[in-house]
Amino acid sequence: MVDILHRVGVTTSTPQRVYAAITSIDGLASWWTEDTKGSSDVGGVIEFRFPPVGGFDMEVVQSSPSERVVWRVADGPEEWVGTTIEWDLRQDGDYTIVMFTHRDWKEPGEFMHHCSTKWGQFLMSLKSWVESGAGQPAPRDVQISDWH
Amino acid sequence: MVDILHRVGVTTSTPQRVYAAITSIDGLASWWTEDTKGSSDVGGVIEFRFPPVGGFDMEVVQSSPSERVVWRVADGPEEWVGTTIEWDLRQDGDYTIVMFTHRDWKEPGEFMHHCSTKWGQFLMSLKSWVESGAGQPAPRDVQISDWH
Repeated sequence: MVDILHRVGVTTSTPQRVYAAITSIDGLASWWTEDTKGSSDVGGVIEFRFPPVGGFDMEVVQSSPSERVVWRVADGPEEWVGTTIEWDLRQDGDYTIVMFTHRDWKEPGEFMHHCSTKWGQFLMSLKSWVESGAGQPAPRDVQISDWH
Repeated sequence: MVDILHRVGVTTSTPQRVYAAITSIDGLASWWTEDTKGSSDVGGVIEFRFPPVGGFDMEVVQSSPSERVVWRVADGPEEWVGTTIEWDLRQDGDYTIVMFTHRDWKEPGEFMHHCSTKWGQFLMSLKSWVESGAGQPAPRDVQISDWH
């Protein structure tokens, strides 16, 4: 099993604000993909879509306010199904630190390499959105390659 | 052992041009850090510095024109020493595909999370530099957190 890891620090923020950005449907739609629906309550499913290529259904496994969120990928590309995505938040001085892990990929294949870089860009979109309101969610996301 | 993985696609390029950007001292200084010196021949050492916080000495292990470059970290932060960095290049239609692996970290600690996100930003700087001449090397690099 292999993991994608990232860390960003959000300024002029609090763990509460970042938590809202990763748990509210409006927040998620502001930095990841505009086509976000569903329920972010524990046990609920959030539907992220990236027209026209598909998307992901995330089951919310844990949601501890201002501290930790865990999703399990219930549906999506074969490589994603069964993986988990973990968010850990804490305040460190002027920065809200976001520790991100997309855990338990079966193989470190080319698509995983792509998703690692793409997650990094979306985390920068999250940071920018919380800091200034200027997110870059799909379909306005930063293009990194032929795979978008 | 754990690895950092990334993939970007560079447009209006060739594997030859990306190879030059990751093997010439001028190229490396244009997208990673302006303070780059040394020899990029096989067996040589390239010195990357990020004033005032330190840097890395990379021993060039392999350099196969337009295809593959491997560095071994000879000196730098404790977590980096002994790890290897691998670059694999190929042309796929209009894109030069860059597959990047920073291999054999001992632990998936917080610094590794940071370096994963930071490598992603530097790969975007490499892409931008080859495409348009507009790289963002240190000290003009994109700040992702309290750790720069």
